[in-house]
Amino acid sequence: MEELLFNTVGIVGIGLIGGSLAKDIRTFGLARKILGWNRTEAHADRALELGLIDEKVASIEALLAQSDLVILAMPVNILAERLPQFLDEARPGQVFIDVGSTKQSLVDAVKQHPNRSAFVACHPMAGTERSGPDAAVDHLFRNRFTLLIDTEDSAPSAVHKVSMLWKTVGAVLASMSAEEHDRTAALLSHMPHVLAYALARTIKDAERNQALNARFAGGGLASMTRIAHSPISMWLPIFQQNKTALLAAIDLFQRYLSDFREAIATDDALRLSDLMK
Amino acid sequence: MEELLFNTVGIVGIGLIGGSLAKDIRTFGLARKILGWNRTEAHADRALELGLIDEKVASIEALLAQSDLVILAMPVNILAERLPQFLDEARPGQVFIDVGSTKQSLVDAVKQHPNRSAFVACHPMAGTERSGPDAAVDHLFRNRFTLLIDTEDSAPSAVHKVSMLWKTVGAVLASMSAEEHDRTAALLSHMPHVLAYALARTIKDAERNQALNARFAGGGLASMTRIAHSPISMWLPIFQQNKTALLAAIDLFQRYLSDFREAIATDDALRLSDLMK
Repeated sequence: MEELLFNTVGIVGIGLIGGSLAKDIRTFGLARKILGWNRTEAHADRALELGLIDEKVASIEALLAQSDLVILAMPVNILAERLPQFLDEARPGQVFIDVGSTKQSLVDAVKQHPNRSAFVACHPMAGTERSGPDAAVDHLFRNRFTLLIDTEDSAPSAVHKVSMLWKTVGAVLASMSAEEHDRTAALLSHMPHVLAYALARTIKDAERNQALNARFAGGGLASMTRIAHSPISMWLPIFQQNKTALLAAIDLFQRYLSDFREAIATDDALRLSDLMK
Repeated sequence: MEELLFNTVGIVGIGLIGGSLAKDIRTFGLARKILGWNRTEAHADRALELGLIDEKVASIEALLAQSDLVILAMPVNILAERLPQFLDEARPGQVFIDVGSTKQSLVDAVKQHPNRSAFVACHPMAGTERSGPDAAVDHLFRNRFTLLIDTEDSAPSAVHKVSMLWKTVGAVLASMSAEEHDRTAALLSHMPHVLAYALARTIKDAERNQALNARFAGGGLASMTRIAHSPISMWLPIFQQNKTALLAAIDLFQRYLSDFREAIATDDALRLSDLMK
């Protein structure tokens, strides 16, 4: 059994990621108490009902005042906007983490903040297309990477505690710069999400135009569009905040898709086979 | 218990589809005996070992001579080439089906064949990225569509028997023309496979160019590239045989992807949100 790492953990946003982390924090005995706040109050009620949190707090301010670890699981645009204010209130020894999918704009927003070192930027590379407290599952982070970003700007003691937290819940840690992170996430996650959304839209419109009966689809299409069920309110800001790297990743993919198209159009079996390898 | 529909079923190609159908035929008691032939002889041996078939035959000719239902589970290019010869040998009452993913070139190849009516073109919209006899699973076709193509060119008795077979293994039947089939399959299956292959290639090359460490990927990328593990020997001929409809489907997708790109590039949140809906 790990020693308790934290007395009180406060989670802002108890959905898929925040809620799953709450479950693991409880399972591994990493905190004495878990507080929660959610923009949609019904979600906070549900999180309480599910036992994800011990207590629902009335405001983010109340949560910040009581927590020694603050987990910010919010849409990336709101996070970049609010993090400086949250850090204004940081008390000695208090640690803040996020779990968002874009990092450059976030670390830029607090670069010069006097309490910057209380914040450790984290990106657990885990999730599903589901959302809300009912989407929370045990061991979501086990054997998945959690990326720690620009750790040289965080206090070593904060990085140590946060690393212990992630390791205890089974994550594999890697460190990188915000620039490398956003490029990596664009290629491995954000661009594939754009493809899924674009494919889902293509099929839906083709069906609406009566060119297609999509109920004939097999498992392949379901795989390819699963992540297009991810919430727009979360993913639209990600696409916006990681615009540069995302556009580069889309352009790269489009070049390969054009290569495939060309090889099919010209009956170039050798080229096509080479591309498929 | 269904009455035995067939005395002897012969399966050419005992892989994912042929092997899974063999399992169901046995489970539902649809044949007295199941014969198998495979181009890769080791696969026929393995199919025998797994109990998918009762007997391995030495040649396709021997299989045709003994089977009252012949299931042709072969790459679509070989099928279109060989089906006329197979039908040359058709005996009265003997029924042939295929399970391939493209149909226009296939039905064109036998359009004028004197024994055309012995053949019922079928496309079960089910599968996985795995291949070979070890990929065979029970109930693969249950609650999935099987499309029957150009049934007006098949003998009603053959269509009836084949329909009974598919219904017994749990498939939902739909009929359509070869043209509608190939357009439908291009949009729902072939184009998504091209995207998966192109995405897998994009990531692989980005990793090779050291712009990326792909082991950081989460579950989204795995979903999006799962079907890119499908065998090239099966999919390359599908892409070639359904060239026209596939190119149209790729072009349609590319237009939507360009719309997404444009909305991201111009920070048009309203348009982006509308596209994602």
